[in-house]
Amino acid sequence: MAQTPYQQLEQEFRRLHAFRGAASVLRWDAAVMMPRGSASVRGEQLAALASECHALLTAPKVSRLIERAQASESQLEDWQLANLREMRRERDRAIATPVSLVTRLARATAVAEVRWLEAKQESNFALFAPHLEEVVALTRDKAGVLSQALGLEPYDALIDGFSPGFLTAEIDQVFRTVSPRLPSLIREAIELQAKRPPLPIAGKVSSSKQRSLGVEVMRALGFPFDRGRLDESDHPFTEGVNGDVRVTTRFVPQEPFAGLMGALHETGQALYDLGLPEGWRDQPVGRDRGMALEESQSLLLEMVIGRSRPFLTYLRPLLEKHFGATGPEWEIENLYRTLVRVRRGAIRVDADELTYPVHIMLRYDLEKRIFDGSLPVRELPEAWRDGFEQRLGLRPANDAEGCLQDVHWAIGSFGYVPSYVLGGLIAAQLYETLRRDHADLDGEIEAGRFGVLFDWLRANVHGVGASLGAQELIRNATGRPLTAAPWLRHAEAKYLEGIG
Amino acid sequence: MAQTPYQQLEQEFRRLHAFRGAASVLRWDAAVMMPRGSASVRGEQLAALASECHALLTAPKVSRLIERAQASESQLEDWQLANLREMRRERDRAIATPVSLVTRLARATAVAEVRWLEAKQESNFALFAPHLEEVVALTRDKAGVLSQALGLEPYDALIDGFSPGFLTAEIDQVFRTVSPRLPSLIREAIELQAKRPPLPIAGKVSSSKQRSLGVEVMRALGFPFDRGRLDESDHPFTEGVNGDVRVTTRFVPQEPFAGLMGALHETGQALYDLGLPEGWRDQPVGRDRGMALEESQSLLLEMVIGRSRPFLTYLRPLLEKHFGATGPEWEIENLYRTLVRVRRGAIRVDADELTYPVHIMLRYDLEKRIFDGSLPVRELPEAWRDGFEQRLGLRPANDAEGCLQDVHWAIGSFGYVPSYVLGGLIAAQLYETLRRDHADLDGEIEAGRFGVLFDWLRANVHGVGASLGAQELIRNATGRPLTAAPWLRHAEAKYLEGIG
Repeated sequence: MAQTPYQQLEQEFRRLHAFRGAASVLRWDAAVMMPRGSASVRGEQLAALASECHALLTAPKVSRLIERAQASESQLEDWQLANLREMRRERDRAIATPVSLVTRLARATAVAEVRWLEAKQESNFALFAPHLEEVVALTRDKAGVLSQALGLEPYDALIDGFSPGFLTAEIDQVFRTVSPRLPSLIREAIELQAKRPPLPIAGKVSSSKQRSLGVEVMRALGFPFDRGRLDESDHPFTEGVNGDVRVTTRFVPQEPFAGLMGALHETGQALYDLGLPEGWRDQPVGRDRGMALEESQSLLLEMVIGRSRPFLTYLRPLLEKHFGATGPEWEIENLYRTLVRVRRGAIRVDADELTYPVHIMLRYDLEKRIFDGSLPVRELPEAWRDGFEQRLGLRPANDAEGCLQDVHWAIGSFGYVPSYVLGGLIAAQLYETLRRDHADLDGEIEAGRFGVLFDWLRANVHGVGASLGAQELIRNATGRPLTAAPWLRHAEAKYLEGIG
Repeated sequence: MAQTPYQQLEQEFRRLHAFRGAASVLRWDAAVMMPRGSASVRGEQLAALASECHALLTAPKVSRLIERAQASESQLEDWQLANLREMRRERDRAIATPVSLVTRLARATAVAEVRWLEAKQESNFALFAPHLEEVVALTRDKAGVLSQALGLEPYDALIDGFSPGFLTAEIDQVFRTVSPRLPSLIREAIELQAKRPPLPIAGKVSSSKQRSLGVEVMRALGFPFDRGRLDESDHPFTEGVNGDVRVTTRFVPQEPFAGLMGALHETGQALYDLGLPEGWRDQPVGRDRGMALEESQSLLLEMVIGRSRPFLTYLRPLLEKHFGATGPEWEIENLYRTLVRVRRGAIRVDADELTYPVHIMLRYDLEKRIFDGSLPVRELPEAWRDGFEQRLGLRPANDAEGCLQDVHWAIGSFGYVPSYVLGGLIAAQLYETLRRDHADLDGEIEAGRFGVLFDWLRANVHGVGASLGAQELIRNATGRPLTAAPWLRHAEAKYLEGIG
């Protein structure tokens, strides 16, 4: 029997999924296994795959099939309709971005990334500025064409590439609720914690011990080691596809919890990927619902659950088993105080749950000002220092600890940054609902049973795939649109009242 | 300036090279890193890449460009002409093999491989026979269409897919010289060796010690660990591309030399890949000149050099360093006797330099009879047992140790097998010339200096790429066409006169 246009589309997107999966394993390999001198060879392979994906999405054949499938939508089921909508979304974004622009942006960011690293090492923004200007100019072109095609404001069109379903106006609104509360929250938390400082946890824990702890915890959480791996890399990340998920973490002997916390963060994302609707795993509707949702799963596991007394009650005997850890500094309450410590610092990746949003909101503001034209790239260092001092009462010592600390802008990832804060807000709102529905959750976690937690997440988040918009997904899962209230309640209870 | 048709072709084949390189890393990953449960996901990725490569080669655009480039051949340099010839060769083979046949063969071999493993485990050929019949029938179809397109006999068209430039008639001729000498060579070698048996080398050597020895030797040979890796797998292999070469070996604690010998074999191939003409590395003319040449580089390093007194003189102190090996059984002469031991046995992968060709020539004969129709698949087990007994005076205990021992036929690799013997013959002929031109070669190897060896190989073999046919390459390098005489001289000197 001849295939319908819709069925032919599924075939095309299956191919797309295979190419993207291949590229993902190649990225993992590049970060974890590849010899240092092979970067240019790998670059050619990834570029060839990326241009093949772009060619597939922009092929006249695919657009014709989409039109014909739309013409007979009445014959499609709900999931198929949602799939068709996601296909169209991908096609629209690809068609709007001409190959020439993609290539120029790829070249400019490749150079900018190298220059950024040099500039950071010398803490010399001037080295980086012209390259960042070029990346910004090209990204502005990209935002412009996407804005036209998608009917979104330019910066919203960039956000849409990472976290579809969130608009600047909505983000601004929730951020406006959080932002004014942060200074006093941080100050009070630091004052309270200063009254009962944790005993220091001294000594080193080898990579292999941290690894064996991480593996046991990941197994308990349900990570399937027959369809995934845990490895080591400079920065933790998750790659691969549903069916072959690659998680990495970093091991620092002087930081006994670095390996575990990185693994928890990435396992949150990995279990999201692994819980995506199996029947749709090679289709657009079977993908995750964007970076903000991904980040929510990571933060839920690392920040909300991983740094809670119930989880530490479960963890305590494992620390003795794997680290041989005994003594008062390894008691649950001391571990808790250690892991929820709030500190003002210049570096984002070292930030805690309360100061982290400050870092992010500053960058979000600066990005918006760069894109509305009110902040020239050359004035970025000063704007960063002023903004940081104003928000956190701390002036970075230099640009390496200021606007040069992260790679995002060098590689053109504008519009990504709000997903970090959105992820935290979503995590808190999901968890509030989950705990309301499951009064025994703390007890389950203390006992190392995570079935209730992940059953709920699979039913309400993972298994939904991209069949709903992000906001709709959150509303269905929690009964309300996304607001900052649950996060504020969580933060106040944990940091001011010592609950959690 | 607009690109010429030839330049556009280079562009297309650059893309082909990138896809093939990506597929190669994914195959390496599947054997070395991938979780066991991810095979089907990987299968989809590799199938998508393979069909993309086929589509690229068979695209009307490529054929049009080839025609137009041929029309202005006078403007092309020698390397470009050779490149164009290799492009045409690849295009012709791809066009001759319709996608439907490729797909059916891929499905049939995937099933046959599983059934073969079961049949081997139960030593029950009947389980495997119908699947092998299907694979043979489809491979015969493939040989038929390729025969038509290339103007070769059907079985020659299969050989051409592995070792272009060798025809059955020529292979038969050299094999006919070797074959009658083997029985007496083997018998006499075994009798001579029985008079001075080596002291047994007892004890286990850990994987990590075998690995550190392998790495040091590979470094000395010139393997660039900044553009390649050494890992462990069930069977040693080489994957990757020039610029990112992945070598594996196997470590068996009871076999102290298993790791090193596997690594030497694969490093021979890897250094061939790494020595291919750099300026052509992403073009067809920059590829190796087929399996027989690849195998010659492996056997030269593992069998000819790796099991020689000069090499063992170099190796001796490294064995003490890495294995802590001392005592009379680790003296050079005893190591030599251990490593050149000749034994009649049923299993190909355990065979030595003299009995190995017997295994291969039997299979080659059986393959030819299967393809000329004189041997039905069902009669294979009996034909194997009879042939083996007749050639080596040994009857395999069962089919698991007979015609079921290897995977090649299950996966449709007919025409591959002669390259194993051809590789040995080529290695001997190359080495004879090399030693004639460099009288000090033994001394260099004793001192762990391999520059003379690889300078010569790069100039005469590696750097030639696919710019010459295999026979032409051998004639240019050694001044003569390929004959069996050098191999026979090598074998007699080493196994009957104790020289080497």
